[in-house]
Amino acid sequence: MSELRKDIISGRWVIISVERGKRPTDFISPSQKKRGGFCPFCPGNEYTTPPEIMAFRPADTKANSPGWTLRAMSNKFPALQIFGDLNKSGEGIFDKMSGIGAHEVIVETPDHMQSLATIPRKGVEDALWAYYMRLTDLRKDRRFKYVLIFKNEGDAAGASLEHSHTQLIALPIIPKLVKEETDSAKRYFDLKERCIFCDVISQELEFKKRVIYENARYVALAPFAPSAPFETWILPKKHESSFYPPENNFLELAEIFQVTLKQIDKILDIPPYNFVLHTSPFVDEINDYYHWHIELVPKLTKIAGFEWGSGFYINPTPPEESARFMREAKI
Amino acid sequence: MSELRKDIISGRWVIISVERGKRPTDFISPSQKKRGGFCPFCPGNEYTTPPEIMAFRPADTKANSPGWTLRAMSNKFPALQIFGDLNKSGEGIFDKMSGIGAHEVIVETPDHMQSLATIPRKGVEDALWAYYMRLTDLRKDRRFKYVLIFKNEGDAAGASLEHSHTQLIALPIIPKLVKEETDSAKRYFDLKERCIFCDVISQELEFKKRVIYENARYVALAPFAPSAPFETWILPKKHESSFYPPENNFLELAEIFQVTLKQIDKILDIPPYNFVLHTSPFVDEINDYYHWHIELVPKLTKIAGFEWGSGFYINPTPPEESARFMREAKI
Repeated sequence: MSELRKDIISGRWVIISVERGKRPTDFISPSQKKRGGFCPFCPGNEYTTPPEIMAFRPADTKANSPGWTLRAMSNKFPALQIFGDLNKSGEGIFDKMSGIGAHEVIVETPDHMQSLATIPRKGVEDALWAYYMRLTDLRKDRRFKYVLIFKNEGDAAGASLEHSHTQLIALPIIPKLVKEETDSAKRYFDLKERCIFCDVISQELEFKKRVIYENARYVALAPFAPSAPFETWILPKKHESSFYPPENNFLELAEIFQVTLKQIDKILDIPPYNFVLHTSPFVDEINDYYHWHIELVPKLTKIAGFEWGSGFYINPTPPEESARFMREAKI
Repeated sequence: MSELRKDIISGRWVIISVERGKRPTDFISPSQKKRGGFCPFCPGNEYTTPPEIMAFRPADTKANSPGWTLRAMSNKFPALQIFGDLNKSGEGIFDKMSGIGAHEVIVETPDHMQSLATIPRKGVEDALWAYYMRLTDLRKDRRFKYVLIFKNEGDAAGASLEHSHTQLIALPIIPKLVKEETDSAKRYFDLKERCIFCDVISQELEFKKRVIYENARYVALAPFAPSAPFETWILPKKHESSFYPPENNFLELAEIFQVTLKQIDKILDIPPYNFVLHTSPFVDEINDYYHWHIELVPKLTKIAGFEWGSGFYINPTPPEESARFMREAKI
């Protein structure tokens, strides 16, 4: 079984895949990806994936057969394993626990050639509903402290399969960057009795220069100090601590999300990208200090030694510029 | 001038290159690198670089002419600029300062085809001396709080030039990851009156399984919770808070550093890699809690959405395995 290990100095946890341990030669001869070849996510190939956990499909179609418009299943090569106990233990001064968690895949479209930017708007809504339903289901498992929803689109962004899909990892600990954000937001609230994200949004809506797009309920921003060019955040304008469907729909979120993806595809020629959904940890889902949001980053620059060794980023594109380019994109 | 901007939520600072602002098309058509073509770091081409800051060269050769064995100069396209005041200011609730700093390049060998792993041992010693001399010089400038020394080797690790070189960035703030390490080490010392790194080293030397190599003064380890496969740390066995030449030489550090690089080249077939030197910030250089070290990471996996969005890494190679492969490498 995989292990979760804590770096004693930084406090960062890592997943060490013990069974699938890669040997040096695995890195020298990179695995051949079947680009344009067999795709396990295409309709008709459902038998090659783990059984579906949920799907949007007509009532007259069977599970694990074609007909679906969205399909979620366990990752075939999960980083963490769903069965077992956490078994927290020490190794001398070090801390570890067994690699318990969930690792799922949400295939948002049966069409191999489409992406979240190109499918019908309804497909984006459905994807958001699937994220919400999986979150709601996994929060019932008391072993899990956090569920991270993210997407790797394109080889350079870490996708090992070409067919559009979102991933989800349920974790027995709160990841470092999420904990840093919630801790920082808590400190700000203690000081000011205001949500730090609400203050940022209010200032950005006044300044305008880093606003990319807005609708009645959401705003897309280039953050003031982005770690990478064209980094984009999508946030609810009114305070919401956790990801959920206001008035029981995701219409407006699907709209702003797809507009932003189309803008990025347009001006950067369909770049590889990552997005991640940051929401409040289960332990304190409804609160006044944290504000859920999506962070979206096209993969345009390489993380080099300086960034990796310092946590200090060099960004060659000012966010005021990237916001303007995106605003002016003709989509 | 570039700007340093602080992310209000995470506290992370970024360098925003305002003048060299990259437009979307700069990312679509990546710049052509002159692989195998003209190299500004090769002897005879000294006139194409900024003037040398220091060099190791025979007394009968002139500055900025061939004959050198090591040469340091300003980066031709610096991320930060040496002249000017810090001008700390706000933009509403945000914090920024002008992009003051130093960005230098140390070319460790005149031979385009060599690397730190293949040059004579004396060349590695000279490189370490150059790091030390530049550190000692830059610490005199009271605007600088930290100097980060790092290397990007190979295109995938972020090197834009093929000819072996180390980089140095002097910063007006302490980078986030360094501050986290020193803060954490301080807390551990307050609790235990011991250096956390000394405790780790002592345990690893007893366990043996993650020790890669050692000589009288230094040890190379695979850390217990490495963020990436074959991550390697080199540390002095006895407590030393800041990078310096014990007994006025770098003989043993050059030895272990080159052995480690040779092992990595051997078992991973000369992979791209990054290293970074972490030493105590200038403000408290001689202390009991922090332990300087080199962190070395071959670039074998892609940073994907999960890692970037969570600060939580998945490592497919247990450090006990990577240490064994490196120990057994026939170099």
